[in-house]
Amino acid sequence: MGTAVKTSADQALALINDSVRTLKGYHLTPETCGVKLNQNENPFDWDKGVKERVAEFFVERPWNRYPDFVPDALKSRLAAHVGATPDCVIAGNGSNEMLLVLMLSFAAKAKSVIVCSPTFSVYRLLSDGMGIRPVNVNMTDSLRYDVPAIKKAAAGNPGSMLIICSPNNPTGGAIGESELRDVLSVHTGVCVLDQAYVEFGGFNGLSLINEYKNLIVARTFSKAMAAAGMRLGYMIGAPEVIAEINKIKLPYNINFFTEHAASAILDNAAAAQRSVEMIIKERDILYDYLKTLPFDNVYPSTANFILIRTKHKQKLFEHLKISDILVRDVSSYPMLENCLRFSVGTPEENTLLKESLKSFFG
Amino acid sequence: MGTAVKTSADQALALINDSVRTLKGYHLTPETCGVKLNQNENPFDWDKGVKERVAEFFVERPWNRYPDFVPDALKSRLAAHVGATPDCVIAGNGSNEMLLVLMLSFAAKAKSVIVCSPTFSVYRLLSDGMGIRPVNVNMTDSLRYDVPAIKKAAAGNPGSMLIICSPNNPTGGAIGESELRDVLSVHTGVCVLDQAYVEFGGFNGLSLINEYKNLIVARTFSKAMAAAGMRLGYMIGAPEVIAEINKIKLPYNINFFTEHAASAILDNAAAAQRSVEMIIKERDILYDYLKTLPFDNVYPSTANFILIRTKHKQKLFEHLKISDILVRDVSSYPMLENCLRFSVGTPEENTLLKESLKSFFG
Repeated sequence: MGTAVKTSADQALALINDSVRTLKGYHLTPETCGVKLNQNENPFDWDKGVKERVAEFFVERPWNRYPDFVPDALKSRLAAHVGATPDCVIAGNGSNEMLLVLMLSFAAKAKSVIVCSPTFSVYRLLSDGMGIRPVNVNMTDSLRYDVPAIKKAAAGNPGSMLIICSPNNPTGGAIGESELRDVLSVHTGVCVLDQAYVEFGGFNGLSLINEYKNLIVARTFSKAMAAAGMRLGYMIGAPEVIAEINKIKLPYNINFFTEHAASAILDNAAAAQRSVEMIIKERDILYDYLKTLPFDNVYPSTANFILIRTKHKQKLFEHLKISDILVRDVSSYPMLENCLRFSVGTPEENTLLKESLKSFFG
Repeated sequence: MGTAVKTSADQALALINDSVRTLKGYHLTPETCGVKLNQNENPFDWDKGVKERVAEFFVERPWNRYPDFVPDALKSRLAAHVGATPDCVIAGNGSNEMLLVLMLSFAAKAKSVIVCSPTFSVYRLLSDGMGIRPVNVNMTDSLRYDVPAIKKAAAGNPGSMLIICSPNNPTGGAIGESELRDVLSVHTGVCVLDQAYVEFGGFNGLSLINEYKNLIVARTFSKAMAAAGMRLGYMIGAPEVIAEINKIKLPYNINFFTEHAASAILDNAAAAQRSVEMIIKERDILYDYLKTLPFDNVYPSTANFILIRTKHKQKLFEHLKISDILVRDVSSYPMLENCLRFSVGTPEENTLLKESLKSFFG
């Protein structure tokens, strides 16, 4: 015999913020292929010796004890890695958490968020979910940052939060130093520069944080640092601003595994750097090859992926899948009709991609 | 030669939400002692064999690849662990993240958050930081939930978000089934029941989620499950409500370490259960002993800690520290002047605590 429902699902659903109920959410259909070129991961895993030394620590370290309240040792290592002081750094559970903390810190006062389009979808997921008014600025037809349009949006929405992803996912272009300075000359609100892919190219905005204390740079271990599995993001800004943001950050947000493994990775940062150099070389080779094929467009990239456009998008996606190659269909993004995004893999994986593309077009 | 500052720290600080700037933040001075009774951790670490098998997986598992988009396998295991279906469960980076996601889902519409006092300080950290109006309900003089006062606050703030920590940290008391039903008979908003300590005692609110679809129960691996280091929290509610909350939850919020280690822990849940039984037995022995000492108050506990009050609070804290025993000074909490909280340790640790207390009073 069931118990009578005292508060119904409809009554409970009516309690949820409208901004959340109208969200579509962020979905990714789980698919797997032998050649995985769909998530812009570094294709090179860490050396087994590095992993084994970290694993030894995991066995010794008590699991029942909390991690450090503030991961000071890791913060110092991250600061040294980017050439900043530890009081400029906050680390968290992926750069997604950093973006959320930034919205919690600034958005209510900013009232609106300027997001360029097309870009990483989590920005709008969070700002829409929190009910913050979005101001959309389209990229140019060639999918570059439209600096005059960004300046116009900034001037029209004083004090707003501006998010720039550079290099931009999924288009691959980056904002240049003079362009960013031009934007910051009129933008009075906070500027979040998401540089998840900066190790692969484009202007490094860290050089501007001393001049523009409203600039915050977000970085990640998920791409160049080959550690998407451990979820570590961090951000760098003026110490005064970072101290305030720290107040709303969740305590104990980094577990001991991530804290320790990230330090081990920084001990071996030269290996990550070598993989980045190989990926850059491979990206440029792949770009040159893609330009020889009858795509409608192949977009220049400063990241570890390349965006292409073809009216045969659906057939090509399926053809690659039959070759056991998974790429990302980004055709549902604004302005990206018929577009696919290819992550740059190992030389062997890129050869397989090129062969499959050749057989498709040939 | 320095570069001129274009946006000053003061200009940048003025962009931060007032609700964040006025926060004090959550601080814990890092202190260590041989006997650590200050964070309500399970004093028994996991068996080395369990840890070694998980460590083997860590070495094999590619670090460069993202974790599962949704940790379906873990969600199914958690659901089975609490006797629910997987669509009732969300898992995250500690129950702190679950609390944040709940505030993001409900608070803007709820407009106010009813929090009983004294309780876990993260509730007010988050609600104050997000600028949500707090409604405070004091515990009774004997530090029990004041059900008539909660009902009055609920009736006076229809649709508000109510947070009940049961067993409550740091007082140790729990809300009973009839008391909770009484509250839910008048509370029309969402009710978050934080049951971080429920394995140690008190009414298990999961039995009510089918009746009250506005009830959400939060749980954690940080206490009974002896895994504070890995940061895993989860919550259980009506599937319709959980589906909506999922939209605003950050993607990839659980790293592969936590996902896999949590499954290994659930494989060995019987060991955690044995440690819980020993902690309960030790808590009751410790309570009986504390009652024989000249404290001003020793509060009954259904959790893995005991709250005491003594006008010699400061001297006792220092005396214990000299004995290499670290307890928690909670005297800055509302209503908890002169109070200390002792986590229940291993039998050996509890003996050391008792000996040190005896020497203090004797």
